[in-house]
Amino acid sequence: MAITHGDPNGIGPEVALKALADQRVTRFFEPVLVGSAHVLRHNVHQLGLGALRLRIVKEPSAQVPAGHTRVIDTLPGRKARIAAGQTTPQAGALAMEAVGAAVDMAMEGTVDAVVTAPISKHAVAKAGYEYPGHTEFLAQRTRSKDHMMVMVAGGLRIGLATVHIPIHQVAAEITQGLISSSITRLGKSLVRDFGIGRPRIAVLGLNPHAGEGGVLGQEEEDAIMPAIQSSSPKDWMVFGPFPADGFFGAASYRKYDAVLAMYHDQGLIPFKTLAFEEGVNFTAGLPIVRTSPDHGTAFSIAGKGVASPRSLRQAALLAADIVRQRRRQLAGAV
Amino acid sequence: MAITHGDPNGIGPEVALKALADQRVTRFFEPVLVGSAHVLRHNVHQLGLGALRLRIVKEPSAQVPAGHTRVIDTLPGRKARIAAGQTTPQAGALAMEAVGAAVDMAMEGTVDAVVTAPISKHAVAKAGYEYPGHTEFLAQRTRSKDHMMVMVAGGLRIGLATVHIPIHQVAAEITQGLISSSITRLGKSLVRDFGIGRPRIAVLGLNPHAGEGGVLGQEEEDAIMPAIQSSSPKDWMVFGPFPADGFFGAASYRKYDAVLAMYHDQGLIPFKTLAFEEGVNFTAGLPIVRTSPDHGTAFSIAGKGVASPRSLRQAALLAADIVRQRRRQLAGAV
Repeated sequence: MAITHGDPNGIGPEVALKALADQRVTRFFEPVLVGSAHVLRHNVHQLGLGALRLRIVKEPSAQVPAGHTRVIDTLPGRKARIAAGQTTPQAGALAMEAVGAAVDMAMEGTVDAVVTAPISKHAVAKAGYEYPGHTEFLAQRTRSKDHMMVMVAGGLRIGLATVHIPIHQVAAEITQGLISSSITRLGKSLVRDFGIGRPRIAVLGLNPHAGEGGVLGQEEEDAIMPAIQSSSPKDWMVFGPFPADGFFGAASYRKYDAVLAMYHDQGLIPFKTLAFEEGVNFTAGLPIVRTSPDHGTAFSIAGKGVASPRSLRQAALLAADIVRQRRRQLAGAV
Repeated sequence: MAITHGDPNGIGPEVALKALADQRVTRFFEPVLVGSAHVLRHNVHQLGLGALRLRIVKEPSAQVPAGHTRVIDTLPGRKARIAAGQTTPQAGALAMEAVGAAVDMAMEGTVDAVVTAPISKHAVAKAGYEYPGHTEFLAQRTRSKDHMMVMVAGGLRIGLATVHIPIHQVAAEITQGLISSSITRLGKSLVRDFGIGRPRIAVLGLNPHAGEGGVLGQEEEDAIMPAIQSSSPKDWMVFGPFPADGFFGAASYRKYDAVLAMYHDQGLIPFKTLAFEEGVNFTAGLPIVRTSPDHGTAFSIAGKGVASPRSLRQAALLAADIVRQRRRQLAGAV
């Protein structure tokens, strides 16, 4: 499993290394760190993780002595400038080069999955990349159109119909076509990646009180309800649209295998409120398996050694689960 | 304290009567139930609350024997048609007549506060009223312009800059003027109603990641930040705008006396997720003190006797606290 270190000036290298220093994690998969070996070694030293012995390899499959952790060095023989908490073009470039290398390995099949530590959108933009986030980069690099951001914490799974767009653009995006394809993406992922037969999906409304019968918005009646009614009941059971506040207030998410939220904050606010530090971001619909922690670079605490590796650890464990699940289904299908 | 029974076909009468049957509640204030005495007696009988002896009075100040609960009957000598779970014009009219009578008492000063059990917007519309909710009716009846919906659960207080409008209208409403006046309303209420000197207020962003420096929306830079910067630092300290998901995920609300949310679901989703059944809706900025539970008529469980009175109980206790707080300030000001 490839793990990228994310922005060298954020908490990415720290949480990646701390997670791998925990043997409860690494007995479930063989990790390969991808990125600048200099950045990683600097962090090992800073964090006093000397027990984590890094070994630079050329290929993910290279043999290493027991107790060593493989590193694919994307900046061979050179030092990176490390400035905790700062937004620099070099940091943005290093972060994205690591992701690019890891995704290529996954596409070639030399790793089973990719776990990405957080990048800084600003640093990445300074480095000349034009992606609003990891997900969009991954979609293009793997030539995928049907991807979806799904937040996962235990049995709580929230898919997003729209993600990184301003609120003023959200309502216009909520069409029957988008909701139908979002239900299908989420349903397929629940079956393929989570091994759930005929999953139960709850769809949230867009407007306050889910539109209150048209008084507080029309999108429920014009787009969301028709999409729910035309969904495929033999593949998945779809319910809603539910008023989002009462749905989470009554803990109704416990009755469903997944929730489809209409926009970023509608899904992410309850997710982060409920998941604490255990949340994972999974990109459904890609040919490769990719997860990441649900937090950002946290520049304000970078370099202090206080970041929690829990979310990254959960991201790696979820990726390993999904790899196993996809294999099981392939085996069953043969 | 006046308590209206809300929609007779919802859980309003049930939760009001259950709350008053609890002596932990009534030692903090003297309740007056307002609405159809027939509806109330029917519910007392159904719920087996015989110990709660109702006594119809003409005035809230009328003397009643110890152990009796006053009722102002808004449907004197007549029976109401009670049909649990149904939306009827008569139910809508009864609900609103009770609210109107209670508000008039509060404006005359014969009661100190009003607690309103939930109404059905549809039933109220069928009865010919043209208000999207209680709050708008109250604002008009008390001739108030500077009101604000504030959700309260213990130390968690969330004010809403916009409330009952469709999502597609939200962004256009978020102007510097609206955010400035919302900060002022919230700040004044924290001082006047909650007795907090120089309160700390957190303002949420509108867009994902609070606009990510303009990449995901302009309202933070054009409206919210200028409003924060021009707020009055000697009266209240205002911080933000914060990305809403991370703010609740990191439990940052604990560091502030109140949070200003930009729209209904942004405030209500985390509120209901965190408050469980203890949430109260307080209408700040009215000349009268008015609270209500944070749930609706719950038609699906009406008439079954299973509704929890916790939110209504908390609403009554909060109203009593605010009455005391406003009195203390008046006494101090004299």
